[in-house]
Amino acid sequence: MERAEATGDDCAVLDCPGWGTLLVTTDSVIDGVHARWHVDGPGAFGYKAIARGLSDIAAMAGEPRWAVLAACLPHDVTEEEAQALYAGAERAGCKLVGGDTAFGPTPYAVGTVIGKAHRKGPVLRSGARVGDWIVVTGPLGGSLASGKHKTFVPRVAEARELHETCDLSAMIDVSDGLSTDLHHILRASRVGARVDAAAIPRTEGATLGNALDDGEDYELLATVRPGPLPPFATRIGVVTAKDAILVHPDGREEPLVARGYEHGR
Amino acid sequence: MERAEATGDDCAVLDCPGWGTLLVTTDSVIDGVHARWHVDGPGAFGYKAIARGLSDIAAMAGEPRWAVLAACLPHDVTEEEAQALYAGAERAGCKLVGGDTAFGPTPYAVGTVIGKAHRKGPVLRSGARVGDWIVVTGPLGGSLASGKHKTFVPRVAEARELHETCDLSAMIDVSDGLSTDLHHILRASRVGARVDAAAIPRTEGATLGNALDDGEDYELLATVRPGPLPPFATRIGVVTAKDAILVHPDGREEPLVARGYEHGR
Repeated sequence: MERAEATGDDCAVLDCPGWGTLLVTTDSVIDGVHARWHVDGPGAFGYKAIARGLSDIAAMAGEPRWAVLAACLPHDVTEEEAQALYAGAERAGCKLVGGDTAFGPTPYAVGTVIGKAHRKGPVLRSGARVGDWIVVTGPLGGSLASGKHKTFVPRVAEARELHETCDLSAMIDVSDGLSTDLHHILRASRVGARVDAAAIPRTEGATLGNALDDGEDYELLATVRPGPLPPFATRIGVVTAKDAILVHPDGREEPLVARGYEHGR
Repeated sequence: MERAEATGDDCAVLDCPGWGTLLVTTDSVIDGVHARWHVDGPGAFGYKAIARGLSDIAAMAGEPRWAVLAACLPHDVTEEEAQALYAGAERAGCKLVGGDTAFGPTPYAVGTVIGKAHRKGPVLRSGARVGDWIVVTGPLGGSLASGKHKTFVPRVAEARELHETCDLSAMIDVSDGLSTDLHHILRASRVGARVDAAAIPRTEGATLGNALDDGEDYELLATVRPGPLPPFATRIGVVTAKDAILVHPDGREEPLVARGYEHGR
C-alpha cells in the first residue's frame, strides 16, 4: 500500500542528469489519526507534515531542499489558525515553496519534501551486510505518550555525519517501531540480526516493549561496517546471515518479532 | 492562502543547475468537496488529484515527469477500492513514483506532480503585453454539472505546442473560472483586457455566465503575440493597458468581474 515502501526505501529516487539525484517523499498528518487539531493546534499539523518528510530524506542521508504543503482547514478556521499551520510547517526547517489550501470536515496537512541525494549516493534499505553493526541515533519508546511525535527534530545532520564518517550500508527512520523497521532493512537486505536488548537506548520511563514497538521515534536505524562511531550513535546489535534474534541480559534468546505499526491497515 | 499562487504562478519554479528547472505543484481532492467517494468512486480521487497537478504543469508549458500520491482511505475500505484509487492516479498519465497511505474519517487524495520546464523557460502569469491576443484551448462552463471536472484531459500537449509555435507571454489553467483566472493574469501582468463575449467557446448547454464563472474547466487561458494559432486555440479578446471589459454582441460594454472561485474562502 505504501508505494515508496514497495520500492524498499523512504523516498523515491529520481535521476536528474547533470545536477544529481532527487529524493521525494509525501506524508499525511490527519486530525484524530496523527495529531488532534483542537488539542495539539494547527502548528503541530504543519510541523509534523514537513518533519516526517525531512525524516524520510534523512533516512537516505539526503539534503532537504524544498517542501510543498497541501492543507485542509475546517470551515470555521480563523486566520490565526491558518497562519499557525504554515508557521509550523516553516519551523520544521525546509524552504516552503508552494501549496494548496482547501476547506473540509477533517483537517489535515500533507507535506511533500524534495531533497538531493548525497554525492556518495542515497543510502538504501537493501545494503546491510553480515557482520555490520546495527546502530540507532537516540532513545526509543513512548513517543506518542510524551508528545515527541509532534516535536521531534529530524536527524538530517546526524544522517549526513554517519554517511560521511562511517561506512554506512543501510538506513531507515524509526517511524513504525524498531522491531518493524529493523525487519524492513532485514527483508530488503536478505539478512538477519542479533539485537542486544540491554543496549537499546530507551526514553525515560519506556519499557523494552515500548522501545521495540511504539514507533514514531523518528530516530535513525542504520547498519555500518564496524569502526569508530559518532557520539550520538549507539550500537545495539549485529547483522547476521538469517533470523532476527533478541538477546536478553541473562543470555536468553527469543525471536525479534515485528510488533510495530503495519501499513495497509 | 494559496502559496504557489502568492508567487503568481501555478507551480513552484526551482532551479537545478546542470539539469534544468523543476516545476512542483500539490493539489487536494477531498470527499464532499472536490469529488464524492461513494458516488464518483475512488478512481476519480486518484485521477483528479494527479490530473489537477498535470494541468498546473501544463499552465507553465512544462513537461510532467513524476508524481507522488498521499491518500486517506476510509477504515472500511476494500482492497479493490484502494487499488481503484491508485489505478485512477496512474490513468492520469504521469509516472507514479511514491506515496503514503493512511486511514481516516474523510477520504482524500493529494497529488504532487513534479515536472521540468521547457527549454524556452516556464510560462508565467506575469508576461502579458498590451496588444497580445487572449486565447483559450477549449469550451468552458458546466464542468461540475457534466462531470468533466473528474475526467478532463490536462492540456499538456496543447501547452507545449502553443509554447513552441506561438510567442506565448502568459498562461494559466482555468480552474477558478475564466473571469477569475483572467484577473490572475491581468493582476500579475499589470494590464487590462477586452473580451468578446460571443467569441468565448461554450460547452453545449452552457450560458455565458457558466462559461465565465463556473470553473474547473482545466482548459488553458493564454496570451500570445498576434499571429497564426493552432486549431485548438480560440481567440476571445485582446490585452489592453487597463480595466477588464466584456464586450457583448450588440456593442454594449460592461466590466468583466471576477465571479469564479476565490481561494481563502
